[in-house]
Amino acid sequence: MRLDRGISSWQSRTGRIASGVATMMYVSQSLKRALQVKPAGIATIFRGRRRTWVDSAERIARLAAGLKRLGLSPGGRVAILALNGDRYFEFMYAAPWLGAVMVPINTRLAAPEIDYILEDSDSEILLLDDSFLAMLDALGPCRGKLRAVVHMGDGPAPSGLQSYEALIDANPPIEDQLAGGETLAGIFYTGGTTGKSKGVMLSHDNLVSNAANAIGGLLYNRDTVYLHAAPMFHLADGASTFGVTMVGGTHAFVPKFDPAECVETMARDRVTNAALVPTMINMLVHSPAVTSHDLSGVQQIMYGASPMPEATLLKILEVLPKCRFVHGWGMTELSPIGSLLDPRYTTLTGPYAGRIKSCGQAALTAEVRIVDAEDREVPRGTVGEIVVRGPMVMLGYWKKPEATRAALRDGWMHTGDAAYMDEEGFIFIVDRLKDMVISGGENIYCGEVENAISLLPGVMECAVIGIPDERWGEAVHAVVVPKPGTNLTPEAVIAHCRTQIAHYKCPRSVAIRTEPLPLSGAGKILKTSLREPFWRGKEKRVN
Amino acid sequence: MRLDRGISSWQSRTGRIASGVATMMYVSQSLKRALQVKPAGIATIFRGRRRTWVDSAERIARLAAGLKRLGLSPGGRVAILALNGDRYFEFMYAAPWLGAVMVPINTRLAAPEIDYILEDSDSEILLLDDSFLAMLDALGPCRGKLRAVVHMGDGPAPSGLQSYEALIDANPPIEDQLAGGETLAGIFYTGGTTGKSKGVMLSHDNLVSNAANAIGGLLYNRDTVYLHAAPMFHLADGASTFGVTMVGGTHAFVPKFDPAECVETMARDRVTNAALVPTMINMLVHSPAVTSHDLSGVQQIMYGASPMPEATLLKILEVLPKCRFVHGWGMTELSPIGSLLDPRYTTLTGPYAGRIKSCGQAALTAEVRIVDAEDREVPRGTVGEIVVRGPMVMLGYWKKPEATRAALRDGWMHTGDAAYMDEEGFIFIVDRLKDMVISGGENIYCGEVENAISLLPGVMECAVIGIPDERWGEAVHAVVVPKPGTNLTPEAVIAHCRTQIAHYKCPRSVAIRTEPLPLSGAGKILKTSLREPFWRGKEKRVN
Repeated sequence: MRLDRGISSWQSRTGRIASGVATMMYVSQSLKRALQVKPAGIATIFRGRRRTWVDSAERIARLAAGLKRLGLSPGGRVAILALNGDRYFEFMYAAPWLGAVMVPINTRLAAPEIDYILEDSDSEILLLDDSFLAMLDALGPCRGKLRAVVHMGDGPAPSGLQSYEALIDANPPIEDQLAGGETLAGIFYTGGTTGKSKGVMLSHDNLVSNAANAIGGLLYNRDTVYLHAAPMFHLADGASTFGVTMVGGTHAFVPKFDPAECVETMARDRVTNAALVPTMINMLVHSPAVTSHDLSGVQQIMYGASPMPEATLLKILEVLPKCRFVHGWGMTELSPIGSLLDPRYTTLTGPYAGRIKSCGQAALTAEVRIVDAEDREVPRGTVGEIVVRGPMVMLGYWKKPEATRAALRDGWMHTGDAAYMDEEGFIFIVDRLKDMVISGGENIYCGEVENAISLLPGVMECAVIGIPDERWGEAVHAVVVPKPGTNLTPEAVIAHCRTQIAHYKCPRSVAIRTEPLPLSGAGKILKTSLREPFWRGKEKRVN
Repeated sequence: MRLDRGISSWQSRTGRIASGVATMMYVSQSLKRALQVKPAGIATIFRGRRRTWVDSAERIARLAAGLKRLGLSPGGRVAILALNGDRYFEFMYAAPWLGAVMVPINTRLAAPEIDYILEDSDSEILLLDDSFLAMLDALGPCRGKLRAVVHMGDGPAPSGLQSYEALIDANPPIEDQLAGGETLAGIFYTGGTTGKSKGVMLSHDNLVSNAANAIGGLLYNRDTVYLHAAPMFHLADGASTFGVTMVGGTHAFVPKFDPAECVETMARDRVTNAALVPTMINMLVHSPAVTSHDLSGVQQIMYGASPMPEATLLKILEVLPKCRFVHGWGMTELSPIGSLLDPRYTTLTGPYAGRIKSCGQAALTAEVRIVDAEDREVPRGTVGEIVVRGPMVMLGYWKKPEATRAALRDGWMHTGDAAYMDEEGFIFIVDRLKDMVISGGENIYCGEVENAISLLPGVMECAVIGIPDERWGEAVHAVVVPKPGTNLTPEAVIAHCRTQIAHYKCPRSVAIRTEPLPLSGAGKILKTSLREPFWRGKEKRVN
């Protein structure tokens, strides 16, 4: 396979020229490096299917050619709705190889939400695997706007769909189109505070900067075998695609998180690294499979979304005594890593104890500050909003200049997380300024759930809050006030929500309440007082 | 001390804006990160003088203020001629803090060469230490063009010179001016193939990209204590300033390489890392001091400029059995790291043997190829020229658009090093396409030496070549043909050169020859046949 040549369009595209020469970061470089330094090394392992870097790179350049033949051009959006696997990995390189923009879709969304993303991103092509064929029929008019739908499966493609494998077989590889620098590499949708989700625009610079920060902070190296166990559409896992590839590591996959399959895969494929949320880690270490499998190869697990509960920590130190645990904090808007906690601090004893509740210190190339409402840096120990500046900060929200301006003020990403910093730059998150619940690692915006509930006839007012949950950290709880004379049941509220939004966003419990919701002097619902009885005597696990 | 605010000028300066927001890399970020994560940690140790990051950052922001008061503005050039030390380190951050352009001068140059650099770079201010006060009087008219000369010493400044310490004492710290992205950060002069040295323009992006690659490849971390033992004006050492700072490590210094002082400093300051050339490593491990000092803390040494001779390797494995050795290859134009050899390959035995003569694989964000004269990639195992693309490639040569165009073709830096690549991307340098001698780690361009010799009356023609030297790898050798009737001696040739160029560039031996120099069919001097008798039966150590 011949690799790229055409530099000609590079300079004109990026505008990053000095003295007639462009120097830039580009996602495809990491793939080409892996191909060069480990041609016969294993790139991907998926349920026993192993592919070398030579095979993978060839398939990626052919897939890019196939997508091009379907009408996708540089800058065009291509969406994916699939579980984890080697094909997901190939997609994440085929899009930048072609200079196209990837749009990974949260696999747990409801049809109206997927419709919205396809429509909002103007996606031209959708790739989906067997798990989501049924979803295709539920899609709205956006379905007709797609140039093509590609079936990423082992078997033959259903009628009307393109076959992923046929695209690879039929098209000779194309050269890397050399998109890079500030060119848009992907749009990653996150929950929206005001109902609709927002597309986070990340550039090649963003994704490569994060990859370099991850390598420096997480010690990925040529011997790394990374398990994609958390969903790849989330950058918390998906972004590892680029860093692990850059060092010439190996990618292993499970389609979705399942404790037993994770344990088996870790043992069989000699996995060294993964990124999981504490809820998953907890399930993993309590899985009966751990006793019958050799997990001694697991060297480091990054965890995020919430601090590690002490009970989980004690258990994992027992099950995986040699494994380092790195607490990471970030968000899609930061590509995604904002801070990392050196693994020496994931301990309850010894000289490094006392910082396990911190989400760490600034990522290597990030500038992190805690500021007040006027964007003035606050003294150490004082709570304020975390703001971040640096090459990992998103370009902005797709088609949302207002939201972009609100989030990116003076070049700083305003994260909406409230925290304080100690004397050595360790960040302790204390609350969220965003009205959001984090359940099992998923961000759930209360506004989105409240929107859905309000569409149910008979609802007068409602409020959604997070309440403590042993397994998921937090659970979504709705307080609903029916219109006078209406009979609402919790079951009806939940059933209604399931037609509107992803299951994981739906309330797990509903309180029907006849008295009005408590209001602040300014007329805002006082969620703190709704939450208070649930959290009394418990520490709120945020971050 | 208040850190930066003024983002306003950032966006207009860099042009790297998307959706009204700038995301970039900037040198000052690494200093601010160290200050945040290790405020009371030791930033610099110089002959017993220790400064914390709080102290260092304060001094840097004050020095920047002082330079500003002397008339230096963002974009202005500020040169330095000094031995290694904590003040050199401070300078390397004060310049970017102010948005100015650093011009580190090779301390071994002769006065006419320094004159040329000050003139060519339009430097406005020169900082120099006590070792170079005498040089000041030898400078030509450029001396008068300087706004100020700053004395970087412990004692009082000589008359007419500004005092470095007074600048720090007298000026309140200024905020970071937030230069970044493709803004010029420094001009680094290298030998010129055609007589005059060229200024390599490196941007903030370039230097930060190299820092991130160094952290990922050399494993710098919060516990690193890096010894600046090789000269800091060389990026081979100087660039470590940014990577080691970014992780919050510590900088130790010796003014210049001296085996005994190096050993003492390594033991006393618990040095973990350094970058040295094999000649220095050889002197170090044979120094009597090694037997009486504890060097067990030394974890990793990067070496470059030539492969490790076997005898040296056997000795260092005996003296520093736990130390990892990383062979690096690069050049100023690559900021400077182009490739690194994983330390497992620095061995003569075991499964990783056989690659010790390689200078490694592509740096993390670099794309490296071997190409033929038409810039086509050659098959693995075939010799061609190394070309490199990526965010570490220089902006170009200062005021030399022709030379820039020649070196940076289609975005690839053409390095002038001939090499082949094996099946796993390991680079083996076999020759230099540049007419250059590498002696003790210094690049010496033959054209520059030939220029100097030709100025001596009585010289008809001359040729400069590298010949084998046990201690320095190569030594400069001149072949001189006198004009008929002229009486030239080797001593006279060498003495003449010393008035023109740096001592290290002067021939160490001269052959006076009466027959004309051998010419190729095209009339070019056949240096290969001049070199042949010296190298017969020896392996040429290149790279």
